Amino acid sequence: MSAPTVFDKVALIGVGLIGSSMAHAMRRGGIAGHIAGYTHRKETLERARAVGFADSLHDSLAAAVKDADLVVLATPVGTFGELAKEMASHLKQGAIVSDVGSVKTAVVRDVAPHVPQGVHLIPAHPIAGTEQSGPEAGFAELFDNRWCILTPVAGTDAHAVETLKTFWQRLGSNVEVMDPKHHDLVLAITSHVPHLIAYNIVGTAADLETVTEGEVIKFSAGGFRDFTRIAASDPTMWRDVFLNNREAVLEMLGRFNEDLSALQRAIRWGDGDMLFNLFTRTRAIRRSIIDAGQDTADANFGRTKKTP
Amino acid sequence: MSAPTVFDKVALIGVGLIGSSMAHAMRRGGIAGHIAGYTHRKETLERARAVGFADSLHDSLAAAVKDADLVVLATPVGTFGELAKEMASHLKQGAIVSDVGSVKTAVVRDVAPHVPQGVHLIPAHPIAGTEQSGPEAGFAELFDNRWCILTPVAGTDAHAVETLKTFWQRLGSNVEVMDPKHHDLVLAITSHVPHLIAYNIVGTAADLETVTEGEVIKFSAGGFRDFTRIAASDPTMWRDVFLNNREAVLEMLGRFNEDLSALQRAIRWGDGDMLFNLFTRTRAIRRSIIDAGQDTADANFGRTKKTP
Repeated sequence: MSAPTVFDKVALIGVGLIGSSMAHAMRRGGIAGHIAGYTHRKETLERARAVGFADSLHDSLAAAVKDADLVVLATPVGTFGELAKEMASHLKQGAIVSDVGSVKTAVVRDVAPHVPQGVHLIPAHPIAGTEQSGPEAGFAELFDNRWCILTPVAGTDAHAVETLKTFWQRLGSNVEVMDPKHHDLVLAITSHVPHLIAYNIVGTAADLETVTEGEVIKFSAGGFRDFTRIAASDPTMWRDVFLNNREAVLEMLGRFNEDLSALQRAIRWGDGDMLFNLFTRTRAIRRSIIDAGQDTADANFGRTKKTP
Repeated sequence: MSAPTVFDKVALIGVGLIGSSMAHAMRRGGIAGHIAGYTHRKETLERARAVGFADSLHDSLAAAVKDADLVVLATPVGTFGELAKEMASHLKQGAIVSDVGSVKTAVVRDVAPHVPQGVHLIPAHPIAGTEQSGPEAGFAELFDNRWCILTPVAGTDAHAVETLKTFWQRLGSNVEVMDPKHHDLVLAITSHVPHLIAYNIVGTAADLETVTEGEVIKFSAGGFRDFTRIAASDPTMWRDVFLNNREAVLEMLGRFNEDLSALQRAIRWGDGDMLFNLFTRTRAIRRSIIDAGQDTADANFGRTKKTP
């Protein structure tokens, strides 16, 4: 790559799926002069070292963020407040502090009070991921053609926002700037409630007395298996999402429940037209998502080889 | 292929995703001497002819089933009663009448009264499919390593059941024999309720005033897009499933709702342990499904290229 680096030093606080993918993508694009990784767990540090995506790895937060131009919190959002507090006095003047958390108002609430004068807090959320976790799970293409949402609060330095925008574009993403509160509402419906109902139905299926777990597993190709992928996502990360986006999730869940009650009633009373009309409408949304490049057009996500 | 054919003539009543996939798989395995296809729609007939998976195509039910050793109903289940009635007098003595419907007690209820003495009714359900429909959507590998459930009623000729079992095994499937009522309960949780909640959340997302449809589409990679695949399944087929498996679907939906209320309460009251414990339990089920060969272990179903 001939484009110049965006930052001399980037510190990744957390080296799981997202942190390690950012490192791979930074290397692919020549985006950072030095990539520092931090994790407080010795075992994770060794695993990250074995994969080898960072220029330096630290179990000291102070050492990791020293001289960093960009510091990215990439741990479960419930840890952000403590980390921000601990790193505050070690941050370089003019640095950008960002994150990759799935909620944004809670990040502003927990992190902003600890960010020193002269350091720019710009929360961010790349809408990308897989059901896998840990430093081995990352890959450079994760953010390609996905969206990254930045949620700077009013008065944030415009140049810093532009720089972070460039950074995410160079990682492969499209970038949108949004109010933190609106972000949390959008993600509640496009991500958080879908995860909740996936976790829920997998739990329901596991707890039945009339159908065995063996049957659920054998016959999962009827649709259930799709939900288990989402329900295999990192438990700590997702616990923290629900605890930190309570209001928006409960609001969207209320809408979901209301609509589900109407469907339940349609089934009980044999209202085939109501079912048919909904099932036709939803098909169009799938097509729009494929047209927007946000999913594959291949049958079964391409997991079944198709040879007509 | 050197194995002998299982049937001299097989009649596929319906040539959509499942019917055309059966034809491709029969040809791959040399399973049928002659494959006849039936559809009442001229346009579908032409499309099936263009793909070219059948030895003969008919818009006359009598002509399609004439001399057939196996007749397979592969249309939406709501049409089975009429079709069975119309074909009854044209069926060959000793023939097997089967189907591929997603519900089984309703099939026995609707079809059995029309099946003549000397003809064997053996309902069947291959647990395989994609979100795509029509004669172009089929492919030979669809049933490979998936399960097919046979639900013969008491007193069904054992030799006929064995023959149909062999047929599905030669198509690539594993075969299980089950009571129709139990089938409907198992599929309610592994397929029907998952489809219902996928259709439902896609509808909910489309109807919001606070989040635009454009936002839902752009940011769908957070989880929502997985649900849109299932919610793109054939509307007529799925209307008929819900109308014909009412009791089992409502029972399983009751369990789902009960569990979801508990999760909703845990979020409202900040019960992180309850969330964490569920999210950990569900991860194990994903692993079992992968170990059972019912889904890919690749991240994001393999739709994201992974190059670590």
